[in-house]
Amino acid sequence: MNPTALFKLSYGVYVVSSMDGDRPTGCTANSAMQITSSPATIAISINHNNFTNQCIEKTGKFAVSVLSEKSNPQIIGTFGFQSGREVNKFDSVAYEWKEDMPVVKDACAYMVCKVINKMETDTHTIFLGEVLDADHLEKEEPMTYAYYHKVIKGKSPKNAPTYIPDEILEKEGKKSGEEKTVKYVCGICGYVYDGETPFEELPDDFKCPICKQPKSVFVKKES
Amino acid sequence: MNPTALFKLSYGVYVVSSMDGDRPTGCTANSAMQITSSPATIAISINHNNFTNQCIEKTGKFAVSVLSEKSNPQIIGTFGFQSGREVNKFDSVAYEWKEDMPVVKDACAYMVCKVINKMETDTHTIFLGEVLDADHLEKEEPMTYAYYHKVIKGKSPKNAPTYIPDEILEKEGKKSGEEKTVKYVCGICGYVYDGETPFEELPDDFKCPICKQPKSVFVKKES
Repeated sequence: MNPTALFKLSYGVYVVSSMDGDRPTGCTANSAMQITSSPATIAISINHNNFTNQCIEKTGKFAVSVLSEKSNPQIIGTFGFQSGREVNKFDSVAYEWKEDMPVVKDACAYMVCKVINKMETDTHTIFLGEVLDADHLEKEEPMTYAYYHKVIKGKSPKNAPTYIPDEILEKEGKKSGEEKTVKYVCGICGYVYDGETPFEELPDDFKCPICKQPKSVFVKKES
Repeated sequence: MNPTALFKLSYGVYVVSSMDGDRPTGCTANSAMQITSSPATIAISINHNNFTNQCIEKTGKFAVSVLSEKSNPQIIGTFGFQSGREVNKFDSVAYEWKEDMPVVKDACAYMVCKVINKMETDTHTIFLGEVLDADHLEKEEPMTYAYYHKVIKGKSPKNAPTYIPDEILEKEGKKSGEEKTVKYVCGICGYVYDGETPFEELPDDFKCPICKQPKSVFVKKES
């Protein structure tokens, strides 16, 4: 079995949000799909370790904000590589209220759902939500997960269903086809620096465009 | 609520297959997503009316063939717009056996799964499958559902989770932005003819490239 074959499944990039009491919170997700058309229902998959999971459990509601190709990639880092237990993620991201749920403004569409069923696995909960409200926001193309990998050069956090450890990727030769070059990779979110300025010459206050961590967390990698 | 906002969720295009006794069968699907990484599991959503649903129920196994941008679009029609109750769909599509399940050859990857859980809705079953085997096939980009709509100009069959009746699309003005032109649309699968030869001048044996139905099923539409 070659686990990298599962990379061929196509996804979008979403912020799944809910409420922790009166505090909005959420996480980045790629696993969301429509299940029925009438009534409209959506299934999402959220890791047990994600704080958002227990917030959805408590409130019985969640929102899905569909990021577009023009959405600020920092949103992915803000919601994907830190925990809502410690950080008020929505403090730095513009949002609006829809059916008492927080929805990211810089997105191309949103859906707000009421949980009507769920299925447990060892690590993730699949929540089935009936859509209470949905509409378009920006007129941009939705960001696909492939676009996130190829254009933004991001990778999956450890809680993602699509996470595969680097050791396995290397064993499967997934990395051997790439150019043998030196890369600077963000140690937090995996963003690969590809600017024109050589990494060493970047100013000291350079921050990872995805997760906003400082230059010092970048790791030099030869591949 | 604007149901067309749900179009912004991203999907691939898949053939979900299983066995009816010793006869391979399957259907086109767009709803498949990875749920956990270790062990690797995949969730798919299949309409109760799809014959494939009861075959997966009986065998407890299914395969997902990931169609690529270069896969013959006839495969989508063969598996999407007719029923495995009446037709041996695999008679006209090359396949190979993986873990005793039929896998479409003209695809970029496959996964064979054993059903380990399921969740019912009014119209669809969400099957959770543990991946028994998976590998790459062709070195092509996976076909996204957006590509299918935009490039191949196909639409959703009525059993699809993403199906929205034309009346609602028109009401939502989804169609009003398009050019006011005459189109010839396959009455079976919704394929919109866009060849250089005017439709009227096509030979009598012209067939829909998606579902292989004759020229006579095409309907003239003004929009």
